[in-house]
Amino acid sequence: MLDAKAKAMINGKNFAFIATLARDGSPQLTPVWVDTDGKHVIVNTAMGRAKQRNTARDNRVAVVISDSKNPYSYTYVKGRVTEQKKEGASEHIDKLAKKYLDKESYPWKDPKETRVMLVITPEKVISQ
Amino acid sequence: MLDAKAKAMINGKNFAFIATLARDGSPQLTPVWVDTDGKHVIVNTAMGRAKQRNTARDNRVAVVISDSKNPYSYTYVKGRVTEQKKEGASEHIDKLAKKYLDKESYPWKDPKETRVMLVITPEKVISQ
Repeated sequence: MLDAKAKAMINGKNFAFIATLARDGSPQLTPVWVDTDGKHVIVNTAMGRAKQRNTARDNRVAVVISDSKNPYSYTYVKGRVTEQKKEGASEHIDKLAKKYLDKESYPWKDPKETRVMLVITPEKVISQ
Repeated sequence: MLDAKAKAMINGKNFAFIATLARDGSPQLTPVWVDTDGKHVIVNTAMGRAKQRNTARDNRVAVVISDSKNPYSYTYVKGRVTEQKKEGASEHIDKLAKKYLDKESYPWKDPKETRVMLVITPEKVISQ
């Protein structure tokens, strides 16, 4: 369901914002780096962070990817975190560090943290 | 509860993202212009839009104001829409058009629409 425009937005050096649901059902919102495998929106976080815990409890999310060159251009994705994937997540954050920071590896790795990918299956995609 | 950094972020020409709750409790997310009276975060929308209807039903919101000069700098506000104010909302969207577009009046006014200000009382404010 990700169309060409949405994929281009995600593959560009654009920042995203992900809304999840806190335990009390209130919205929680954080800026994130973003990636796609062509089908899913992928966000990399660490086990124990609010968005990881929130989506383990209730997997419904909304994501806006904002065009860094034009604040009036964005892609909106509503969907569900259908998988939390630890395997490959450490390599994946390095891939994002290359994209966003032009560094070979993620500079803020914390050995106490376990990285995890939130794999989002889109249910609605709107680009504007 | 809005500190100096949060006020500076809101008063700057920075874009915001507001997360509200849809009827089914899922998160809904939209980019918005943003303003403050020094105490509240103020978002201008029109009657009938999703974020207006959502917050009339459940007033809990989360807002991120993103620094247009530095994507790693942002202010996060969690709070509630404690008032939906129509009085002065048309003048207020002109004020925002001046701030964001450097125009004397909002160019996309629709006579069929009634503007409304979502007045957000912050419960938690974090700048990063």
